[in-house]
Amino acid sequence: MTNEHDAPLTNGQQQAATQPVVMSSRIRLARNLENYVHPLMFPNEDEGHRVVNEVQDALTDLKVQRLSDMDQQSAYKLVAKHLISPDLTKQPAAAVLLNDDETVSVMVNEEDHVRIQVMGQDLSLDALYQRASEIDDQLDAEVDISYDETLGYLTTCPTNIGTGMRASVMLHLPGLSIMKRMNRIAQSINRFGFTIRGIYGEGSQVYGHVYQVSNQLTLGKSEHEIIEALTELVTQIIHEELEVRQRLLSHKENETLDRIYRSLGILKYSRRISVDEASYRLSDIKLGIDLGVLDMPAFDFNAMMIAIQSPFLIDEETTQSIEAKRAYILRQYL
Amino acid sequence: MTNEHDAPLTNGQQQAATQPVVMSSRIRLARNLENYVHPLMFPNEDEGHRVVNEVQDALTDLKVQRLSDMDQQSAYKLVAKHLISPDLTKQPAAAVLLNDDETVSVMVNEEDHVRIQVMGQDLSLDALYQRASEIDDQLDAEVDISYDETLGYLTTCPTNIGTGMRASVMLHLPGLSIMKRMNRIAQSINRFGFTIRGIYGEGSQVYGHVYQVSNQLTLGKSEHEIIEALTELVTQIIHEELEVRQRLLSHKENETLDRIYRSLGILKYSRRISVDEASYRLSDIKLGIDLGVLDMPAFDFNAMMIAIQSPFLIDEETTQSIEAKRAYILRQYL
Repeated sequence: MTNEHDAPLTNGQQQAATQPVVMSSRIRLARNLENYVHPLMFPNEDEGHRVVNEVQDALTDLKVQRLSDMDQQSAYKLVAKHLISPDLTKQPAAAVLLNDDETVSVMVNEEDHVRIQVMGQDLSLDALYQRASEIDDQLDAEVDISYDETLGYLTTCPTNIGTGMRASVMLHLPGLSIMKRMNRIAQSINRFGFTIRGIYGEGSQVYGHVYQVSNQLTLGKSEHEIIEALTELVTQIIHEELEVRQRLLSHKENETLDRIYRSLGILKYSRRISVDEASYRLSDIKLGIDLGVLDMPAFDFNAMMIAIQSPFLIDEETTQSIEAKRAYILRQYL
Repeated sequence: MTNEHDAPLTNGQQQAATQPVVMSSRIRLARNLENYVHPLMFPNEDEGHRVVNEVQDALTDLKVQRLSDMDQQSAYKLVAKHLISPDLTKQPAAAVLLNDDETVSVMVNEEDHVRIQVMGQDLSLDALYQRASEIDDQLDAEVDISYDETLGYLTTCPTNIGTGMRASVMLHLPGLSIMKRMNRIAQSINRFGFTIRGIYGEGSQVYGHVYQVSNQLTLGKSEHEIIEALTELVTQIIHEELEVRQRLLSHKENETLDRIYRSLGILKYSRRISVDEASYRLSDIKLGIDLGVLDMPAFDFNAMMIAIQSPFLIDEETTQSIEAKRAYILRQYL
């Protein structure tokens, strides 16, 4: 049942991402059902399964997968592909509803009853929000959603009350990282009410110079205001990143070329490699392509950043270590 | 005049060294002329030039080069090829006499008036000593050599008095280095009256896991006794090195293969590289070949260890840095 979502490279949202800097965008809406306690307070699993049933009945064009029917590795693959959060794998009666190309993912019984997520490849938050709203309307037509006229949507965690919306953009920022500008960037992002994180969300490590920028506040501003402000902020960061990259070529050409080519050499030859090293070397390749140094039109940074995650590398038929398997798939790919 | 000795790869002593561990051997005889003060005490340069003339007249089948006729870069190339010592380049009235394939080098007016050196590729110290003795006899037939019936040959530095002979063997010891056995090896070498150094002699850094083992004492033992003891010691070190290499494959296979292949990838792709890094990566390639991991029959470790030295990389026609030029020739070679 989970087979179609097993391969790291068939993920619709990840394909053909050839533009520099923006890797993907995402809108997430947190919703809760009236007449049920919050997932963290379910008296028993049945209560949770009833919530799953209600959501499933409302969103019939999505395919549901209950995490209790899934082995751990399949669940971790969904995490690696950003389709579910690590927290969902720890919840009883958790489920996820996906569409075929994996651009829509609805988590059920994570922190909130429902988290609608819509993903896209470029900075098109408006379009993603529209899609998410349609799913929200579909849900709203069938179930009672917790909503307060003054506060807006009610959520488990107070930071999500209001719109219940989190808009986020995944950015590849090797230039700003190499030139040690990220601290300053993070400070100014925070000043505007946004936050910057690693690619697996809150508290997660930064891999391959990829950062996630998202809104911190969900209350007191409309969805469109939040999206507009984030789009403006991200546009500014993209501008700075591209400017710094040009400086890498004009002022540090030897260093930059050496960095890019060494990473290519190591990915083509290494026999074992950690996810941390693999991701920053893939970042160097992507930088090289974006700078016009390397000509590798088929290289898919997004897909490779997912393919190197450990859940895709566990192979019970061989005794090969995960680091050896990772090095092997990178050699094959390059 | 110095053209034939300019290229790093035409050095007879360096070619076709395919055996593991032993890179080259060398016998050096220190001799001084009666009727002249030691070079360090020459009252004027003419005195030194007269010594050069006397040696030249005695050794007519060697070609003489006076260092004063040579530009600095050409002199440094001779140092890089181990044909002269760094100290010779600082001496007034210094000269070197070479044969065509550069297996014989006679330094004039270094610390002693004459230092006869004969080099070979394998552990054949007896044959090298025989060759050096013939040159010594040729010299002795024409000039008066300082010799004391009790002490033996008289030299500027007391550590060379006696035989005036230094026998040395250049060894590639990646296994013992990687497994951190070199300190213990060095201690036991010292206990036997021998010493271990980097490839450019006393006080020089170790590059590419290459070490020079030579006798410390020249007094109280005959040349043949010294050669026999050194040969025995080196044979023991070779045995330990080969044993440790097998352990690298049996106990640390992934780590060892990864190390070898990464070095190959980096040498094939880097855009700038220091002599230190280049030498230990070349060492990894040589180790890979010796272990049967890499199949590169044309790879010449000795020649490349010389070719990466800075004097061969200075190119006044381009603004390329030495590190970029080094990376370039390594990419071309591999």
